[in-house]
Amino acid sequence: MLPKSEVKYIQSLSQKKFRDEEGVFVIEGIKMADEILSSYSHLVRAVYATEKWIVKNQGKLTNSISVHELQTFELQKITGLSVANEVLVVLNKPTSIKFVPDENPVVVALDQIQDPGNLGTIIRTCDWFGVNQIICSPDSVDAYNPKVVQSAMGSLLRVTIEYKQIEQFINDHSMYTPCVAVLDGETYHDFLFPEKTLLIIGNESRGVSVSLRKIATKAITIPRRGEAESLNAAVAAAILLSKIRG
Amino acid sequence: MLPKSEVKYIQSLSQKKFRDEEGVFVIEGIKMADEILSSYSHLVRAVYATEKWIVKNQGKLTNSISVHELQTFELQKITGLSVANEVLVVLNKPTSIKFVPDENPVVVALDQIQDPGNLGTIIRTCDWFGVNQIICSPDSVDAYNPKVVQSAMGSLLRVTIEYKQIEQFINDHSMYTPCVAVLDGETYHDFLFPEKTLLIIGNESRGVSVSLRKIATKAITIPRRGEAESLNAAVAAAILLSKIRG
Repeated sequence: MLPKSEVKYIQSLSQKKFRDEEGVFVIEGIKMADEILSSYSHLVRAVYATEKWIVKNQGKLTNSISVHELQTFELQKITGLSVANEVLVVLNKPTSIKFVPDENPVVVALDQIQDPGNLGTIIRTCDWFGVNQIICSPDSVDAYNPKVVQSAMGSLLRVTIEYKQIEQFINDHSMYTPCVAVLDGETYHDFLFPEKTLLIIGNESRGVSVSLRKIATKAITIPRRGEAESLNAAVAAAILLSKIRG
Repeated sequence: MLPKSEVKYIQSLSQKKFRDEEGVFVIEGIKMADEILSSYSHLVRAVYATEKWIVKNQGKLTNSISVHELQTFELQKITGLSVANEVLVVLNKPTSIKFVPDENPVVVALDQIQDPGNLGTIIRTCDWFGVNQIICSPDSVDAYNPKVVQSAMGSLLRVTIEYKQIEQFINDHSMYTPCVAVLDGETYHDFLFPEKTLLIIGNESRGVSVSLRKIATKAITIPRRGEAESLNAAVAAAILLSKIRG
């Protein structure tokens, strides 16, 4: 039986404040647990799972991992999903890797992205195209939010995500050309992306903030052929990344 | 005061069964209500809104629309959102437009798409790129699911979505070349999309079903440069559409 204090502890990790204090986050589900235990087991603190899952995955559970066998109704108490999966893992946030411009021809900057699904999808898309560094403005959604984790999957552990003012990054790294994605810029087809590109994607409803538009050297657009008012932020990021890194 | 029966009626519309029986669906929020009332007011059956919203939008509310002024706590009872917005609209599903191949160089087919956010995003992306016809396999998520509506926005009323076997569409429309998006096909950069393309996007975890892969004439791939296991289905659709229709 899982003690009440531990139930409360895991529940508290749905909030950013407690994730930050503890330096941990939660992943759920067989597929993601499998990826984490295969490639990132050094980050795993604790596993909460059904007997069936534990028997099947015994070989991956090193001594440093605290393993808790739970009944389904107990898992249901700690899950962030509507229906609990067979396994929930608490793991340490990865330590940030020092940013090396030479290894990053493209950096993606997100200006006040609010939707966790969008952030997760952008992280996964960056990972697909070999973009390893994302800058999020401090008022963006937290990358360890359970919904971000769910849509980013293992990519969350491969892409470094740093929360800081995008203006600060631009000041500190003048070798990058800041390019904003907007509705009225240069068509991206004909656009020759600079050798070092900082691709700036704006907020879901307001787009890129005025101050960043002023600083940006280039403004690029995905031309509209139909009638939708805008493209989803993750979709816009993906189309531009496929052009830069395709 | 909204009668209990009406509260129940609106709540029931969160389920596909009742939406189908009534031929209606629900949209919520100021932005979407504005778009619906400006361009599709002939579809609107009823509006449930705060006094403030009604005063502001009086000019758009024709006589055929049944308008209900509600207190915020009453709106909270009928909303599908966690916090009710100022306005909720019940409207008729648009009647399908007869499919004319001559007007549709590209048709998108979705094979068992399950995530409502993905379907909504794909509908909006199709609308952006001027693709007006989507075929969903019968076991795909319902296009009038509230979460699909929320991410598709007004595009749901401009793009025709038909639920039928994709194999059936291929049999009936031999002028279209069926192209599946897969992980091991021809690189999409070098791929010359046929004059009439049926772009088939697969299920989020299983990809395109084996039977459709066998029928498809072409298999295309977005090359991976990093380590993510796969691309999100809506992202893959968007990147390929940007290539075909960009």
